[in-house]
Amino acid sequence: MERTFGHRHILDMKQFAAADITTILDTADGFKEIGRREVKKVPTLRGKTVVNLFFEASTRTRTSFEVAAKRLSADGLNIAASTSAVVKGETLEDTAQNIVAMNPDIIVMRHGHSGAPHYLAERLQGVSVLNAGDGTHEHPSQALLDMMTIREKLGRFDGLKVAIIGDIAHSRVARSNLVGLTTMGAQVWFAGPGTMVPPDFARLGATVTNHIEEAIDGADVVMMLRIQRERQGKTLIPSTREYARVYGLNAERLKLAKPGALVMHPGPMNRGVEITTEVADGPQNVILEQVENGVAVRMALLYLASGGDGSIQPQV
Amino acid sequence: MERTFGHRHILDMKQFAAADITTILDTADGFKEIGRREVKKVPTLRGKTVVNLFFEASTRTRTSFEVAAKRLSADGLNIAASTSAVVKGETLEDTAQNIVAMNPDIIVMRHGHSGAPHYLAERLQGVSVLNAGDGTHEHPSQALLDMMTIREKLGRFDGLKVAIIGDIAHSRVARSNLVGLTTMGAQVWFAGPGTMVPPDFARLGATVTNHIEEAIDGADVVMMLRIQRERQGKTLIPSTREYARVYGLNAERLKLAKPGALVMHPGPMNRGVEITTEVADGPQNVILEQVENGVAVRMALLYLASGGDGSIQPQV
Amino acid sequence: MERTFGHRHILDMKQFAAADITTILDTADGFKEIGRREVKKVPTLRGKTVVNLFFEASTRTRTSFEVAAKRLSADGLNIAASTSAVVKGETLEDTAQNIVAMNPDIIVMRHGHSGAPHYLAERLQGVSVLNAGDGTHEHPSQALLDMMTIREKLGRFDGLKVAIIGDIAHSRVARSNLVGLTTMGAQVWFAGPGTMVPPDFARLGATVTNHIEEAIDGADVVMMLRIQRERQGKTLIPSTREYARVYGLNAERLKLAKPGALVMHPGPMNRGVEITTEVADGPQNVILEQVENGVAVRMALLYLASGGDGSIQPQV
Repeated sequence: MERTFGHRHILDMKQFAAADITTILDTADGFKEIGRREVKKVPTLRGKTVVNLFFEASTRTRTSFEVAAKRLSADGLNIAASTSAVVKGETLEDTAQNIVAMNPDIIVMRHGHSGAPHYLAERLQGVSVLNAGDGTHEHPSQALLDMMTIREKLGRFDGLKVAIIGDIAHSRVARSNLVGLTTMGAQVWFAGPGTMVPPDFARLGATVTNHIEEAIDGADVVMMLRIQRERQGKTLIPSTREYARVYGLNAERLKLAKPGALVMHPGPMNRGVEITTEVADGPQNVILEQVENGVAVRMALLYLASGGDGSIQPQV
Repeated sequence: MERTFGHRHILDMKQFAAADITTILDTADGFKEIGRREVKKVPTLRGKTVVNLFFEASTRTRTSFEVAAKRLSADGLNIAASTSAVVKGETLEDTAQNIVAMNPDIIVMRHGHSGAPHYLAERLQGVSVLNAGDGTHEHPSQALLDMMTIREKLGRFDGLKVAIIGDIAHSRVARSNLVGLTTMGAQVWFAGPGTMVPPDFARLGATVTNHIEEAIDGADVVMMLRIQRERQGKTLIPSTREYARVYGLNAERLKLAKPGALVMHPGPMNRGVEITTEVADGPQNVILEQVENGVAVRMALLYLASGGDGSIQPQV
Repeated sequence: MERTFGHRHILDMKQFAAADITTILDTADGFKEIGRREVKKVPTLRGKTVVNLFFEASTRTRTSFEVAAKRLSADGLNIAASTSAVVKGETLEDTAQNIVAMNPDIIVMRHGHSGAPHYLAERLQGVSVLNAGDGTHEHPSQALLDMMTIREKLGRFDGLKVAIIGDIAHSRVARSNLVGLTTMGAQVWFAGPGTMVPPDFARLGATVTNHIEEAIDGADVVMMLRIQRERQGKTLIPSTREYARVYGLNAERLKLAKPGALVMHPGPMNRGVEITTEVADGPQNVILEQVENGVAVRMALLYLASGGDGSIQPQV
């Protein structure tokens, strides 16, 4: 690799220039093949300690990082906040400093508060912080696996129209994709009901609409977000049936997109709500490719954040 | 090994011919010694990924599979359904397909619904499904460890009388043992109160009685099942004291069996209910041998299901 | 090492002569450097199985033992009692015997009842039991990491005055430190309110006072214990504010200690209750050194208890 990476922490997509994203995706492309081997393991991160510190429950992201660490021969450790000292009134920084004192190399972290990984990255010494989702802010590894899948299937980002549909206001996936995709020259549309897609999201660089058809029209990629009927006790939609009728992706609506447009979903899917089973299982869906690429992208992030390409000096 | 195994999935005992069972037990006999070495580890499954996907809590079976995977140098991953996307309304198949997309080699699965592993085995590509207990249907690795213990101690199956006593109606252990043992030529008796041993279980090939003495009389093996006072809110027995008196195994009743008959229990035991402490700790019990053999049997199943004997072509 | 260790089980500090403690701390000193390497892993316990059997939730002690086991290349297994057969009415010994039947080398155990590890150590064959905290009795690995930190910073134990302040009556940390430190020639003071420091604790060899200033006066080490407002439904202190005012460590009180006296805390800290933020983050605190040394001490204990220095014959 000619260009070095140089990012010790991976906190959000905003930190990356286009060349950084290309480095990550190239590295992930190289790692992807390991998961298809008979012996799915390389010694790249042998003797490194990776802590999964999850303050919110997450099976799929945590598992993906765990598989990625094992495939690179790192030693992994899972810490679920609900069973940890946090409930005993310890501060977030004390909890993290206690982990750092055991000399891990990387802390993969999910937290319900936006900005929590940034807060810790500023305060912790000798460790990399990887944001695995913070509040409604960012989820960079998800955006990168989405982008890896798009690049793999469509060969480019420049000039693509990507429609992201659903509860944009609460979606760190939408936000990270917006930043990453626009950095690479794609055009991002956000669509959904007014309660979920406030008009001022246009400020962030997206084209905003409450008409899903407008967003899908001519799109190269249609990314559906998971619908939650309630969030913090507030009902966001009148009914899932109503939502499916007006905002769900069905075969009819998908015809508005470019022929061969990709159908994506970060999971878990509510079949029959935001996406019909026909579309979810149809020939245009790349949903499971997203999952496979997730492991490869996380291998790349663990490798690059630990200075695997020689761009970061080890700290003692 | 002359005969190859050829089973990618291990779903129930019904799938096995006598020769298959012999192959599994022979392989397990070979692996047992590894657990007694100073260095309890062989590189057999290095670089393989084994996922323990448990939709029902289970410490002992899950731990046994986890130890088995580690002794074979496989990378293991535990996914507990209570913390997974299942609670968010994802379908069982979507949950499983998401795991398969990360390229595991084997999914060890426990599920509360009978037939769930079969359902997935038909739909998943490129992975082996191992049933670690499904509903009231089967628990093949438990039956195989029981059979390994019986063969080890008594040297044969043919002509043995095996009495299985307790809540047969809800026991996947009883069902798997019945199938496996009769395949190998043993005669299985089911005994317990009428609410727990419906007479039509005779259809399955067992001899059924409500008189425990009749089942134990002349038996080579007495296998006691754990008693649960309630199941799905329904009281099955009037009191544990009453149960112990009429259906519990005590020293007096054990005298009805053959001299040196084996006392078995899949655990966890209710001492003083289905078995007295005197018998549980007596010279005829092989309860802890069952546990040790459980690891060896599960090593054999992981090895054979991943085509370790060359009988299964790797899938890509 | 000239002197061999010879302890298969590590149950409490009472079992150790001064030479044993020196052996453990010397061994830990040697292991500490591994955690600071690029490749944080040695093959010392490859193929050994270490079970963390925790009947009480604990993130920090369990994690520290888990990291220690991984750094020594042992295979680790976590069993949390809340999800285990214990809830189904199995006896403690049956639970443990079932684990032993899978041939682990070491069981690291935390239990809410004082003496539970001793009870099991007497009954289990072929396995080492390491007490990771039992009731209000002992927590030897915590005392040893505290002692490692003291020796590292002050170079000796003989003649030191160590003040331990807080809920002594319920603290296994205080009890283990008292035994270990007095064995090595230090003088231990216990201080706290009368409900937390009964006068008869003087029997154990400590100097007891209800005046924190008296304990801190001229101390070489000030160890603050975590305050819990309630324990088993009983309120121990009128308010945390009141506690902080009378028994908390602040900069003013710390001036009573020797210049450069160490400030220690086993964590998790209640900042503003038993310790002010100024002191917790001040130049005299060695709280994170305690955590780092915790991994090294636990590596030493795992190594020595498994006969790593040749002093214990392997059992079959």
